[in-house]
Formats: sequence, C-alpha cells, structure tokens
Amino acid sequence: MCITCAFSEVFEHAGKPKRSHGEGMTMESAILLLSCPDAKGIDVRISEFIWRNGGNIVHFDQHVDEEFGRYFARVEWALDDFSIPKDRVEEAFAPLASELGADWRVHFSSERPRIAIMVSRHLHCLYDLLAKWKGGRLPCHIPLIIGDKPDGEEVARMFGVPFYHVPVDPRRREEGERKQIELLKGKNVELVVLARYGKILSSGFVDEFRNRIISVHPSFLPAFPGKDPFTQAHRRGVKLIGATVHFVTAGVDEGPIVSQEVTRVSHKDGLADLIRKSEDLEKTILSEAVRLYCERKILVYENKTIVFE
Amino acid sequence: MCITCAFSEVFEHAGKPKRSHGEGMTMESAILLLSCPDAKGIDVRISEFIWRNGGNIVHFDQHVDEEFGRYFARVEWALDDFSIPKDRVEEAFAPLASELGADWRVHFSSERPRIAIMVSRHLHCLYDLLAKWKGGRLPCHIPLIIGDKPDGEEVARMFGVPFYHVPVDPRRREEGERKQIELLKGKNVELVVLARYGKILSSGFVDEFRNRIISVHPSFLPAFPGKDPFTQAHRRGVKLIGATVHFVTAGVDEGPIVSQEVTRVSHKDGLADLIRKSEDLEKTILSEAVRLYCERKILVYENKTIVFE
Amino acid sequence: MCITCAFSEVFEHAGKPKRSHGEGMTMESAILLLSCPDAKGIDVRISEFIWRNGGNIVHFDQHVDEEFGRYFARVEWALDDFSIPKDRVEEAFAPLASELGADWRVHFSSERPRIAIMVSRHLHCLYDLLAKWKGGRLPCHIPLIIGDKPDGEEVARMFGVPFYHVPVDPRRREEGERKQIELLKGKNVELVVLARYGKILSSGFVDEFRNRIISVHPSFLPAFPGKDPFTQAHRRGVKLIGATVHFVTAGVDEGPIVSQEVTRVSHKDGLADLIRKSEDLEKTILSEAVRLYCERKILVYENKTIVFE
Amino acid sequence: MCITCAFSEVFEHAGKPKRSHGEGMTMESAILLLSCPDAKGIDVRISEFIWRNGGNIVHFDQHVDEEFGRYFARVEWALDDFSIPKDRVEEAFAPLASELGADWRVHFSSERPRIAIMVSRHLHCLYDLLAKWKGGRLPCHIPLIIGDKPDGEEVARMFGVPFYHVPVDPRRREEGERKQIELLKGKNVELVVLARYGKILSSGFVDEFRNRIISVHPSFLPAFPGKDPFTQAHRRGVKLIGATVHFVTAGVDEGPIVSQEVTRVSHKDGLADLIRKSEDLEKTILSEAVRLYCERKILVYENKTIVFE
Repeated sequence: MCITCAFSEVFEHAGKPKRSHGEGMTMESAILLLSCPDAKGIDVRISEFIWRNGGNIVHFDQHVDEEFGRYFARVEWALDDFSIPKDRVEEAFAPLASELGADWRVHFSSERPRIAIMVSRHLHCLYDLLAKWKGGRLPCHIPLIIGDKPDGEEVARMFGVPFYHVPVDPRRREEGERKQIELLKGKNVELVVLARYGKILSSGFVDEFRNRIISVHPSFLPAFPGKDPFTQAHRRGVKLIGATVHFVTAGVDEGPIVSQEVTRVSHKDGLADLIRKSEDLEKTILSEAVRLYCERKILVYENKTIVFE
Repeated sequence: MCITCAFSEVFEHAGKPKRSHGEGMTMESAILLLSCPDAKGIDVRISEFIWRNGGNIVHFDQHVDEEFGRYFARVEWALDDFSIPKDRVEEAFAPLASELGADWRVHFSSERPRIAIMVSRHLHCLYDLLAKWKGGRLPCHIPLIIGDKPDGEEVARMFGVPFYHVPVDPRRREEGERKQIELLKGKNVELVVLARYGKILSSGFVDEFRNRIISVHPSFLPAFPGKDPFTQAHRRGVKLIGATVHFVTAGVDEGPIVSQEVTRVSHKDGLADLIRKSEDLEKTILSEAVRLYCERKILVYENKTIVFE
Repeated sequence: MCITCAFSEVFEHAGKPKRSHGEGMTMESAILLLSCPDAKGIDVRISEFIWRNGGNIVHFDQHVDEEFGRYFARVEWALDDFSIPKDRVEEAFAPLASELGADWRVHFSSERPRIAIMVSRHLHCLYDLLAKWKGGRLPCHIPLIIGDKPDGEEVARMFGVPFYHVPVDPRRREEGERKQIELLKGKNVELVVLARYGKILSSGFVDEFRNRIISVHPSFLPAFPGKDPFTQAHRRGVKLIGATVHFVTAGVDEGPIVSQEVTRVSHKDGLADLIRKSEDLEKTILSEAVRLYCERKILVYENKTIVFE
Repeated sequence: MCITCAFSEVFEHAGKPKRSHGEGMTMESAILLLSCPDAKGIDVRISEFIWRNGGNIVHFDQHVDEEFGRYFARVEWALDDFSIPKDRVEEAFAPLASELGADWRVHFSSERPRIAIMVSRHLHCLYDLLAKWKGGRLPCHIPLIIGDKPDGEEVARMFGVPFYHVPVDPRRREEGERKQIELLKGKNVELVVLARYGKILSSGFVDEFRNRIISVHPSFLPAFPGKDPFTQAHRRGVKLIGATVHFVTAGVDEGPIVSQEVTRVSHKDGLADLIRKSEDLEKTILSEAVRLYCERKILVYENKTIVFE
C-alpha cells in the first residue's frame, strides 16, 4: 500500500479532534503495550498498522533502554473508525509482533482490570484506595479484599466490598496462601495490591502472579528494606523519609520500582512522627501506582519499570 | 522567691524523663498559647511560673516577629506533679499574663476540640479526615458534618457521624447560614473545617467563628484565588500546582495561611489531571492543619500564622 | 514511494543502536521543532520523510494541545546516513511543512546557540551559568555579558567573557537599550538571558527578540509579580516560596512559563532567609531552562510552553 | 539572686528589639552549643546564667533525645550589655556546665571559622562554595584548597584562594595525608569540607579532625554508599535520586547525616542525566551544611546530628 494513499485516507478523518491526556475519554480505545529488541523503524511499522486500519492514534509513547538494547512502547488509538473488530485485533497484530520478536498485549479502555487488595492491621492505604475507587478515580473492579488479620473487615463493609479473613500461620504458610490464591483465582483477579500486607509471600505465590503483585514499602528503597524500616531510619538519623511502590519478586523489597516519594524529617521527629508522615506518602503513591496500572501505563522488564506518565 | 530554691525544687523531679515530641503522650499536659508585645525575659518568667508550681516543661517553642514587635509562645508541661488544679490554672496565670499584656489561652491535652466539617460535592478531604479520625490520627471530636448539597451524607453515615443537609440559596444566604450557625453552636463546635465547601461565607458567619474556620483552596495562594483555580492555572501554563489551607476571613482566600504544598505538572496535564493531582495535596495539608490545630500548635496574629511543628 | 520499500530500506540500518537520552551524543543530529494545526497522521508523515532519506530517529516527542487544536513535535535524528546535506534539509522539508501549515525550524546539534547574559547587582545566577558553561554542562557560546551596573564585571573577567557596562537611565531608556540591542546584534546573539537583570525592558526591545528572551523572577508566578516579591511573600505569610523562569513579553512577568520551583519557609524565616533560599532555586531553574533551550527542547505557543524534558 | 530583681533588671533593656533570625546581625553575640544528660530545668538554669549577667537571649533552641536520654541546646545572646568579657565567658560558665555534666563550647559571632575545601576532579561544589563565600553568604575564612588532582587549581586562582596539589598514592596514603594534615594544621583549619574529594580518608586523618570533616555523597544514604552511586541507582531503577551531606567517620559513608535532598528521575534518564541532576543537589546541600556549621547550628552526638535550622 502506498503511503500517499494511506495519508489521503488518514486525512479524511482529520477534522475529528484527538482527545487529550487525562480528559474524559468517552470513546473506546485500544492500548498496545509492547517491548522488543531495539531496531530502526519500529515506531513507523506500528503506526502504519494502526493507520492502515483506520485507527486514530491518541498517544504514542516509546522508550529505548540502552543497557538492554530494548524498545518499549505504549500506543493508544481510538476504535471508532478502526476496521478490525475488537476480538480480532490481537490476531491481526500478531504477525508484526512476531517479526519484531515482541512481548506484547492489547488492552481495551472499556475493560477494567479486576484488582484484589490484601491488608493486615494498617488500614490507611485501604481507605484511600477504596475512597478513590468509589469516587471514580480508579478505573478498576475490586471484587475482594483479603486480610490475614480481621482488622480490615469493617472498612471493607463500609465500601461494600467482600472481605475474606485468611490467617496465615508462619509454620504452615503454604496452607494459608493456597486459600488466598484460590480466592484470587476464583474472582479472576488480574492485579494483587499489597496495601501494607504484613506477611512475606512465598515464591510460589509470587510465581502465580508474576509482575502482577505490587506492594508499598515504607522506606526509600533500597534503603531500609524488610522489617521495621521506621526504626532503621530513626536510628540512622536520616533527614528525609520515603516510601516505595514496587512489583513483588522472590527477593524481599527487591522488585522493580514503580514509584517513590519522600518527605522531610528532623531530629525533632520521633518514631510516631515518622510513621504518621509516611502514611500520607504510602497512600498517595500506592493509589497512583494502581491508577497507572489500570490505565496500562506500566511496563516491567527485568528489574526495571517503564512508567509512561 | 529565690531562683536557687526554685531549682533545688525543680531537680527533685529530674529523674523523670521528658516525653519526646510525637511519642505516645499518655500523661495529661497543659498547653499555653500566648502572644504579647516583645520584651526581654518573657521566656524565663513563663518558665519560672511553671517550675515554681512543679510543672515539668516538655516543649517550649517561641518566636519573635520583628515586623510586629511581638512575642509568641507555645509551652507544654506535664500536669502530674503540677500543684495547681486544672480548673484554677488560668486564674493562677492571669496576673503574669496581664503584666505581659498577653493574648493567651491554656488548653489541656485531655480536652479534644469539637470540630465540624462542611462539604459540598467534592468528598476526598471528607474521606481523609474521617479515616484519619477513625484511625486515631486526629485527636478531636467530630459531632457533625454539614453539607449544602446532599452528596456527603453517605460518607458521613459510613463513619457514623451525623450529617445535616442545609441548602444555601444565594439570594437568601443569611437564612441558610443562620441554620448552620445554630447547628454549630448547638453542638458546641470550636473549629469549623471547610473541606472543599463550595459557598462563600458571609462576614457575619466569619465573625461568629473568628480565627476558628479553616478552609482548603486548590491553588498556591495568592495565585488563583476564588472561582475555578484549575482553569486559571491551566490557562496560565504553570509548571507546578498547589493547594493552601488558610483561616477564613472576610476577604475571599485572603486569610492567614497555615500550610501549602505543590506538585509538578507539565504541558501534558489536562484539567482532569490537575484536579486529580490537586486532590492528594488538598487532603494531606487539610488533615495536617486539623491535626496541628488539635495539638494546639497554631497561633494566628494579624494576617499570619505561627505554626510550631 | 511504497511504505513497504521504505521499511526495507529502514531496516538495513537497524543494527546501529539508537543513542539514549542524555548520553554522550557524539554523532551529529538534526532537530526539528514544529507546530501546526492538529490532524490525523502528522507523526507518520514526518517520520516517513526522515526514514525515506535514511535518517535514524533517536527521539520523537509530540503533544496535542486541545485548547488550541494544535500539534507540537520535537524530532531528533542522526545525520550519519541521512542522504540530504545539512544545508539542504530545510529546503527538502519545506513542502511537507507547507502542507501541514506549520511553524517550524531545523536545528543541528553541532550548532551551539549564541547566548548573552544580562545582569545587575545580584550575581548568583551569573556565577552558576558561567560555572556550568565552563564545566561543559551548557552547550552554547556566551559571547558577551551586559550589565546596567558594573557589578558583574569581575565575575565576567574571571570566566574570560567580555563584559559591557551599559547604564540605562530610566528617563532615557530607549537610548541605553539601543546600545544594548546593538551589542547583542553585533555579536549575533540568539537568546538573551536575564539573570536577575533589574530593569524592565521596553516593548521595542522585547519585539527585537520575540520568544528569545528568558528571565528568572524570584516568586511563584503569577503570585508576587513585579517589584520586591520577597517583601510581598513575607507580608502574605506564605509557607513556600518559589522562583519562575519565563519568556519575556510586553506584560511584566506575564510571559510563557518555562520552569518553576519552590522551597519551604516558615514563620522563623526573615526576609534575608527568603532571599538566601530563593537564590538556590533561581540558579537551578535558570540554568536548567538555558540547557533545555540549547538542546532545542522548548516550544512556545501563545502564552504557553511545551517543554520536552 | 532573686528572680524578681533579675527581671526588673531585664526589663530595663526591654525597649531594645531582639534581632530576627537570619537578619543582618550587626551586634556581636555569643553562641553556646551544649549537650548533657537530660534533667528537669536545664533551660531555666542556662537562661538564668545569661540573664543574671545582662545578656539578651535572641535564640534558645533545645531538644531532648529520648533514645539517649540527652539534652541538646543552642543558645545565642547579645553581648552588648553582657557583663562578662568575652575572654572570661567560658570560665564563668564552666561551673554550671560541670554540674550538668555537659559537653559544651561557646562561640562568638565575630569569630568566623577557618575552613578548608578538598577537591578532586568534579568542581561544581567548589564553584558554588566559593561563589557564595565571595558573595558574603558563607561567614567563614577559606585559607586554602587542597586537591589530590590539579583540576581545582584554576578555580581556586579565580577566587584568589591558595591551592595545594597534594597527590595521594593509594600504596602510600599516609604519606600524602601527612602533608595534607600538616597544611590544614599550619593554616589553623577548624572544618574540612570534602567537596566531592575522591579519596577515602584513613582513620588516622579522621581522628585528627573528629566531627570536623563533612562530605557530600551523591546518593540518598544509606542507599548506594561507596563507589559509583550513579550506576548503582541506575541499575536499581530508582524513581528519585538523592544527595547526602554527612560527617566523616571511619566507616565509609556511615557518619552522622547533616542534610539530604532528592530529585525526580524516570526511565528516560540515562547515567549522564543522573549525574547532571545530582550536581545541583550536591551543591545546594553542601553549601547549606557549611553555612549551618558557620552559624554554629549543628550538634553531633553518637551517629546523629541535631540541626537547629
């Protein structure tokens, strides 16, 4: 097909405005998340596939990681004039993806991810996620909340989300986790959000949800991983404290980082102040990470994330 | 009384540790908030009053404003060995206060302020205040929530706080406000928190609660006061957006500033992004301001605040 | 020309790695800055022009402003295999640009912009610009420094840059400005950087260098424009102070904003503290803005900037 | 002496305004830095010593560290009406200090500390320190700069400060350090500032200047200590990078932290971007730490600092 012709076709639709980032996106769009070995012209080939089929690209973000020699892209296009039906898009794109040697997935803006929240005793992140979700700020379904402690039950009830209390006995961790995984799979959960969940997940659990578990840790990782980061930070006499959202991998607090934030502390701040200040950081960045996930803006590769904000 | 003697008395109690800032303060304390014309030795005179009566000072924060030639202090002392009963402390301090020509007030850590929240349609701050309050992070009572719209009712019910829907017709503002003031006074409310309340209060309302109404405005004041700060900010093409908590005075968004925070935006951010980013700022600084008020850490003088964080 | 062929040509060069953002860019590249009415497929048409002529795109940043219905792009491509000689690139691109109705300009990474710095008494920004320039952090030429006061002369001499003392008598401003403009034009200056220059430029001066004068103002604009922003901020009792880099237009401190930064202040900070804290902000964002300009990362349209960081 | 009398004396001077924090402090003041085991009434005893001798306290900052059960204070008072001559102040205060079991030192605002800067190849901090010093922002003497590389010599000459090139051969480190220590002692240096000095100091060197060497490390300690923090940060995929100023102790990058700052990075930032962004952080916090030291606002105890900002 000749590019001049392609364009004449393209410009028939030119009067229709693109929709802006973050604006009320009422029409349905498709979102391609893709990574592949870097090469010249990948952008053009992907664009060309979309234009040729009548799609109007509204966002095209790409990145090349030099270290890995790898290309990453998030492409979003409007489906209203797209000639390929939704259920055949993947099939239609597969040949090009295969040529590129790509890891890829096509999402649709109308398909909200199903997300589970896991909690223990600290409920500030749970409140914030549920309030934002109820207020329409998080485009997802939340079919269940799991707690290894019963503390989250009341909050779950306030927001009308089913709560499952599944205690995990450290000596028989697999048993508790088996129940949790069953619940998550039974509800067809795509993303698991550890909202200050207090137990370390087994590598078996992590493998079941590879790159689909995120957690918030109350420190500026890699500083102060693991147990009691507040005491560690207080003892070290740091002048800023932080919080980190990361994907969960087998190594504790070692997974790819999605988001980090810090706030100022001084010698006047005791442990209780550090905890209080941290809670607002944790809430903000965990909700933000969930939103970015729902909007299909996060790619994970090896131990890094590409976040197309 | 001789200062040497004062000290010998003082040191009898020396073994008892001071309590640290922010640590679990289980024993009751008194808190003096005071401002007066600046002079030499005010600190010593106040300290001396407390020591002489067996009080153990745990915090002494002071500030001199050069412009006003005025001294400000917040003094907190433990009551366990204090020889003056709580109900006679003000009487006992009055002579010194009078000599200093001071505006002052003594609070007690056991007396939690009674706070009312006023809302309209945007509920993010309401959720955050109530979640922190329920989680024990805000040492206050919340006897009622008032909405000029019915939107906040469900949230109020979730947290078990009485909600009063008092519509305010702009053409008969006084009428609506009269009902609101009646409710607030009937519940013996000390502080009114405007959590994105959408109406401008009359000067009559403001006078009823002088220096006892705080509001959050979604801009970095004095930039973008009044109506639609997001559109103003978006049009001006700012690279940071902010939020401001201030005491409410007769001039719209002109009262003494308690707290401000900003976050980064770019040309990519549409109005919806500005609003979303702002909400997290607003929540955090409004809750923080309420906490500081509850802990008696804010002094207001003319158009400024002294915040002893 | 057929797009399939275009691609086969494209992929011949695929083995050559793209260069990463910010890495030592030793090979020469061309940079297109363009804005035009928004339409479907602009990205593909521009890409196609570059690919077809053997260019390897290393960065393609684009943005659509909904308010203006306008498309903005910065495209950078390596020149090593590009078949069009540098001095004919503009001619070759002109037909497409004309079809798009674009404002545009092609720059080359090897052509460093010629920048003049104008100062008065406050020299912190001058030091920072010169130190970064000397350290290789600012890819530009600095052929002269102009001061309406003699204060900057010593610093200029330290760094070996010619200094011209051109006093501007407010009653005969045009006269002083005429000399300044003559100097700037004589040295073939592209960008004028007002590094805390104390005089307001006439609209005549501004017109001579339209969208080519940037200035740093020590406040968070639009708050506290014009004279004495520190006193204004101090009186208002703000809890954050800011600095703003903007393009200079006829209205004082009203031009398109390039960059803003803030830092925390409290009641304890006097005027001198505000000034000291501000200086570090001003330095950092002014140098940053100059760097972004040199790297051709700033587009101006109406009263906004698009900054492709 | 009777406290009532003390006050009558005190109030004779009441008309004279206190000077504000950070304002041009033209009159001379004394500054006491003190730490001792915590006890009741320490504040009053210190104040009383000063008032009794006619001193007008302009700042009294104190802190109690619960973990160590230790009291810290910085007290500044005007000397104009102080009855004890400067050279006898320490003698006069010694008995009270001894009773309190205190570590302490009295400084005078007129005595500017003598500071040496040590550098290697990266000169951004050196420029910033010297520009601020020349601009009157750092109240200190800088009698010499030492470089283990010759790179800093030109900058030193620009600012008229003697530069000594003292190479340090890793196999004979003591030899080089001996020369450096000789130079520092010969110039009567109080504080050694490592402005991105590239060599690790021996414990012998550190012992010679206990709590009197500060260094800036380009990471958010305790994350990424030691060699090549930028590569470590880049590999870990952090979303914020930081810089830390700390006192130098025997353990590399393990000393008490004075100041920390961070800035945002993304997947788009390569190593060169991290380095560039870090340099502005490093400059700002190192200069700030030197200023705080010069103003006698830093106390060190065990592995923590108390910074009275």
